[in-house]
This record gives sequence, C-alpha cells and structure tokens, in this order.
Amino acid sequence: MDKIVYLDNAATTALDPMVLEAMIPYMTEFYGNPSSGYSIGRQTRRAIESARKQVADMLGVKPTNIFFTSGGTESNNTAISAALTDLGCTHIISSPIEHHAVLHTITHYCGDAKVTRSFVKLNASGEVDLHDLDEQLAERSAKGIKCLVSLMHANNEIGSLLNLTTVGEICERYAAIFHSDCVQTIGHYTLNFASSGVHFASASGHKFHGPKGTGILYVRDGINFTPFIHGGGQERKRRAGTENTHGIIGFTKALELAMENQVKDQAQIETLNKQMREKLNALSDEISFNSTAESLYTVLSVNFPTGTNTDLMLALLDRNGICASGGSACNTGETYGSHVIAALNKGLAGATIRFSFSKTTCAVDIDAAVEVLGKILEPVKAVDHSTAAIPAD
Amino acid sequence: MDKIVYLDNAATTALDPMVLEAMIPYMTEFYGNPSSGYSIGRQTRRAIESARKQVADMLGVKPTNIFFTSGGTESNNTAISAALTDLGCTHIISSPIEHHAVLHTITHYCGDAKVTRSFVKLNASGEVDLHDLDEQLAERSAKGIKCLVSLMHANNEIGSLLNLTTVGEICERYAAIFHSDCVQTIGHYTLNFASSGVHFASASGHKFHGPKGTGILYVRDGINFTPFIHGGGQERKRRAGTENTHGIIGFTKALELAMENQVKDQAQIETLNKQMREKLNALSDEISFNSTAESLYTVLSVNFPTGTNTDLMLALLDRNGICASGGSACNTGETYGSHVIAALNKGLAGATIRFSFSKTTCAVDIDAAVEVLGKILEPVKAVDHSTAAIPAD
Ligand SMILES: Cc1ncc(COP(=O)(O)O)c(C=O)c1O
Ligand SMILES: Cc1ncc(COP(=O)(O)O)c(C=O)c1O
Repeated sequence: MDKIVYLDNAATTALDPMVLEAMIPYMTEFYGNPSSGYSIGRQTRRAIESARKQVADMLGVKPTNIFFTSGGTESNNTAISAALTDLGCTHIISSPIEHHAVLHTITHYCGDAKVTRSFVKLNASGEVDLHDLDEQLAERSAKGIKCLVSLMHANNEIGSLLNLTTVGEICERYAAIFHSDCVQTIGHYTLNFASSGVHFASASGHKFHGPKGTGILYVRDGINFTPFIHGGGQERKRRAGTENTHGIIGFTKALELAMENQVKDQAQIETLNKQMREKLNALSDEISFNSTAESLYTVLSVNFPTGTNTDLMLALLDRNGICASGGSACNTGETYGSHVIAALNKGLAGATIRFSFSKTTCAVDIDAAVEVLGKILEPVKAVDHSTAAIPAD
Repeated sequence: MDKIVYLDNAATTALDPMVLEAMIPYMTEFYGNPSSGYSIGRQTRRAIESARKQVADMLGVKPTNIFFTSGGTESNNTAISAALTDLGCTHIISSPIEHHAVLHTITHYCGDAKVTRSFVKLNASGEVDLHDLDEQLAERSAKGIKCLVSLMHANNEIGSLLNLTTVGEICERYAAIFHSDCVQTIGHYTLNFASSGVHFASASGHKFHGPKGTGILYVRDGINFTPFIHGGGQERKRRAGTENTHGIIGFTKALELAMENQVKDQAQIETLNKQMREKLNALSDEISFNSTAESLYTVLSVNFPTGTNTDLMLALLDRNGICASGGSACNTGETYGSHVIAALNKGLAGATIRFSFSKTTCAVDIDAAVEVLGKILEPVKAVDHSTAAIPAD
C-alpha cells in the first residue's frame, strides 16, 4: 500500500515511538511479577506504583483513585457493575449516543428487571438537555430510587461535549452516582477529576498514542466496590489478573507526552480541523457538519450531499489511501449503521463520514483528503438525486 | 542487583526475544484498528484471524473456538459467568486448591443464593478424587440440578495434574459443563481440546514467555454465551474492547515457540527438576515434596524441615539473588499464606517453597539455589526444634 492518509484517530492512534521505547525495558529486562516479593518483583511493583502516581497527578487525583484495566471497555463495564452491585443504584440514566461499551452493558444489566433505564433528551448537536436530566433525577429521587448517570464526556462519532462539573453538581443534588466515559477526552484535555463531581471515569490508552489493551478507571474517594474481574489481590483487590506491566508503563508514558504537549497539540489539531471544515464548505454548499466549532477538537463529522452513500464513499476513500470512518470503528462488522447518527435523526439522505485527527496529522493530509473527496463528489453533483441510493445509516 | 537466579517461572516468565520481535511491527507499522474497514484495519484484522487459526491448530480445535482475552483471570471469569448466566448451571463443583481467579469468582456468584457450590475430595498429593466427583454429580443430576465442574489442569503451587479426558467423560455422563483452568499447562504440554471433553479452557500468555495481559478462552462448539465484557462487536460479539493486536500476536508467537520446542524443553526442564529434587534430598532427610515425579514438570514444591519459616527463607533466598515463591505469587500482598498448602493439611511445621522452571533455567541455577539453601539450612540443623517459630502458612 502506498502512502496512507490516516484520518481515523478517534478509532485508534499510532503508538508513539517514545512510548514504545518506555515499554521495551518491561518487555525485556524487567519481567518480574509485580506481586512477587523478591527484588525483580519489587522492581516492577515500584514501576507500576510510580506510574499510578504519575497518572493520578496528571488527573488531579490520588494514586488510590486510579485502577489499571485492559481498556476503556472494561473500565466502563466495571463502573456500571459497581454502581449497580455495590452502590445501590437501580435506575440508569444515559443517552442514546453513548458508546456500545456503555449501551450494551446497560442493556445487559437491565435484563433482570431489578434495574431500569431511561435516556436523557439531546439537542440537535447531540448535547445533553440538562433540564431534562434534572427532571428525571428529581422524579426518581422523590420516589427514593437511586440513580446512576452514565454520560460520556465527548461523543466519539460527532464530538459533542458534556460539562462534567455541571452534570456532577446536578447528580450531587440528587445523590446520584455519575460515571463518565472519558475515552475520547483523557489525553486530549487537561482534566481535574478531584473537582469534577465525577464518581467514575474511563480512559483508554490507544486513543492518545498509547498501547491497545490498556486503560484506567478513575474511582472517587470513599467508593468501595467489589471487583468486576475476580481473582488475585492485584490493584488493591479491585482488579484481578497479573498486571500488564509494559501496558501500564506505556499508558502512563503516552499520557505524560499528551499532557506535556497538550496546548500545542490542541492548537495544531484545531487549526487542521478548521481548515478541513472550510475546504469542505468550499467544495459544496450541500455539505454540513455534526461537529460544532466548540465540540471535541479531534473530530469532524461530515454530512455529504444527497446521492452519496457512506459505505461507497468509505470504499472510494480507502482506494485512495484515505482512512476515515462511517461512525464508530468499534462496530464495523455489524451490519447496521451508526446508532449515533440514527439517534440524532437529522433526516439526511447522504453519507456521514467522521474524520478524526491527532498530533500526527498534518496539512498535507487534509489537502489530500479534500482533493479525493472533491473527485468523489464530482459525479454526484451531476446525477439526478431522485435516483440516489438510500444510505446505509 | 547482581546475577538473578529466577526459579519462579510459574508466577511469570521472561518474554522471549523472538516474541518481542514478532510484536514490534504491531507496535509500530501496523496500528490500524482491526475493526476498521480500510486497508490498515483489514491488515491487523487478518493478522488477528491468522493468529486465531494458528492457536486453534495448535490446540486441535477450530478458530471459532478461540477467544482472545486480557489474561487467564478474565478467561476464568468469563467461563464461570457463561456457565451460570447462559448454560443454566446452578451448582459449581470445584476444589479448594483452585487458583483465586476461580475460587473468588465462584464465591462472588454464590453470593446470590441461586447458585451453590461444593468441593471435591483431594488425595494427599492434591489430586481429585474422581469417585467423589462422580458421586457429587450423580446426586445433583438426580435432583435435576445442572452442574459446572471447574477443576484446574495443573495446580500452580504444587503441580498436581488432572486427567482432562476422564473428567470430561464423567461430566458428559451427567450433562455437566466442564471448565478447566489450563493456565499452567497450555504452552507446556501438547493438548488437544477437541477430544478432551472440556467445554471451557483458560490460558495465559505470560506463563510461557508471552506477554502479560494476554490470554485465551477455548469454548467448545455449540456453546452460545453472552459476553462477560460488554460493548463493541469484537471477538464475534463475545469479548468487547479494541483488540490488543500486539498482545494477540505475542501470545500466538509464544505458543508457537512453546509447541515447536515442547518435547525438547520438557525433557530439559524435567531433568533439572529431578536434579534439584535429588540435591535437596541429599541436603536433608527432613526435606519432602508436594510435587510427585508425575506432576507438572515445571514445578517443584518443597517442604523444609521444622524450624524453617517460609517468609524468612524467601527473604534469605532473595538476599542471595534467588527468586522463588511461597505459594502463588498472585496473592502476595495478602497477609495469609498459601490456601493450597493449607487445604492439603499436611501438618507440616516448616517452610514450603515453590521452585518453578522454564526453558531459560539451567543447571547452574539449580546448583546456585541448592548451595544457598544449604547455607540457610545450616543453623536450622543446629537449633532445638521445639523453640522454632510457627510458620506463616
Ligand atoms: C467513547 C468510547 N468509549 C469506549 C471505547 C472503548 O475503548 P477500548 O476499545 O479501549 O476498550 C471507545 C473506543 O473504542 C470509545 O470511543
Ligand atoms: C493456575 C492459574 N490460573 C490463573 C492465573 C491467572 O492468570 P493471569 O494472571 O494471566 O490473569 C494464574 C497465574 O497468575 C494461574 O497460575
């Protein structure tokens, strides 16, 4: 394959070579089991605990608030399970545009009738209607029902953002537990969880140039929960299984690099995002966006003109070496389209494509993508729209 | 730290440099999300599916029987959860010397009163009393109770083995589901699960020179289960979460190397194990073994004379650069001793130490360990046993 233009960084990012470098010693020299009492076990134990401290510092919390997991999905499963099993929540308020790692987990737990669920209203941009959230919580709270609110910090397909502090305050008012899937924001923003009102927050290493199969769950002080994965006493008896030492070190190094360069990287990515938006606007009047200028800066979700089809466009982009996504990459292989776009119900008849950026994206990537898109759209401009195929999503 | 003599390979093994080499391309060049439809996603998808086929071939099964997980612990949790949630099992028959990844998981599920448990009888070597297993199954089966039998293939502390085929036949007779924690045997023996009668089997990569944080669950044909970790459609909708591509490749390469050299490695390790046993026998008449000549060849569990103390001996070994374990490494940090040794109830008053070997172990390691042990035991020989400290386990 020739030169690849990778514009799917919300699906996954390339491992930073400096992260790999940090991981290598833990895949060669330092192989001791961190639970072993002898020298080479204590060595990896120290490395993990110092990584935990570093991660905690970067998120404004204490090391005891951080649990290493196998990824964002496990973190989400753990938080939701804990809220229901240990914290007495019997109703879950969530949104229809959460990641499947939240939606399918909720569906699973609602199977047994002791737990119910509802969705908050969203505006056209996918932002949570806070008034509706407040009302839903007030109603349940009046009936003595303890709620879990699980709302993502940034949506992975369209980039809509949530104000964690405001939602935290609303939850506090009704003694609700607040979990936020922060997989698309930890590593992309400077966050302070101690002051955020969040009880649980999930992150995933491979979304910010860290290794796949790594993640954390932030758990607020004073929350005592039974593990989701049972077994040995690792992670202070909250997550069993021999620690993925090199993964933990890689996650931490990636977060360190992300935070060190956060301002610079965000500025660069914001500029590219804006440029792509402007260039697409110049391409066709019929192009619109699901991402606003204020939403997650790494994502640009684009609605293409009537007559375009998501799958076909993605195939043509791929043929030209452009990697982009028609919704969440996590769901490819499933035969339906994006549940996020469907939930927003914009009544659009064209393709919806997500372009997503990282520090590795540069201006020539944007130019290359826009050029290819221009060529793809040429024939569409010429055809009679009434004969266009119905899009997949 | 000077030269380390690593005799704790049942706790974890050093990553094989050839495994690391196989992983590197998936931590550099091939970073695409395997769920993404474009070229660099299909590339990692193909790598994972070809790894799955390779693992399946080595275990005598089909690719559709293999699910990649984050380790042995998650695999055990998944199997037990599936048997209870999806297969209608309401009683679990297990043994008191299972790994905590099985024992604590069972305890968790037995919390809700709908599920009960019992232990099979063990002989003095920790081997399952098959007659007792048969009787227990017969009794429940007569009452219409569907059982899960969860018995490990080899015990990680003492090395006692289970005959999978025989237990499989007994389970078959009573329509019981059979899960085996094979974490200490997959990669160490040539196994064929298609003919073993096992419904679920767990493995962990880091026990045979693969990466930590990787594992598989083998699931027999025709078993339909809901995922343990919910979310995206990965692993044919049975294990959600972005695939740990480099981990999967590493697990597979490690298993490939293990199987290629299985006969040679086993012969070498068996010889060293036997040598250590003989040398220890020569050291003191009061030394006995929890491992038999027929048990897991990688493990030698040693009972030291009255007057020795496990923690003290491990500390002295450590000070001399010798890594060994007083039970399962997975439980260090917990304040109680080995539940396995306790369950065997041998009434021994001395230290119990597990030495465990791998292809990286050589004769000089054994000699060094025995020499240090000789020195440690010198003062013990001289003291009055009646004043000896009560051992920790
Ligand atoms: C918002 C969001 N949550 C959760 C996940 C799951 O993370 P992981 O695949 O690392 O388990 C993803 C991406 O895959 C995501 O974008
Ligand atoms: C018998 C046995 N089962 C399960 C496990 C757990 O495997 P992992 O730590 O990879 O989750 C181990 C070792 O840690 C083990 O020895």
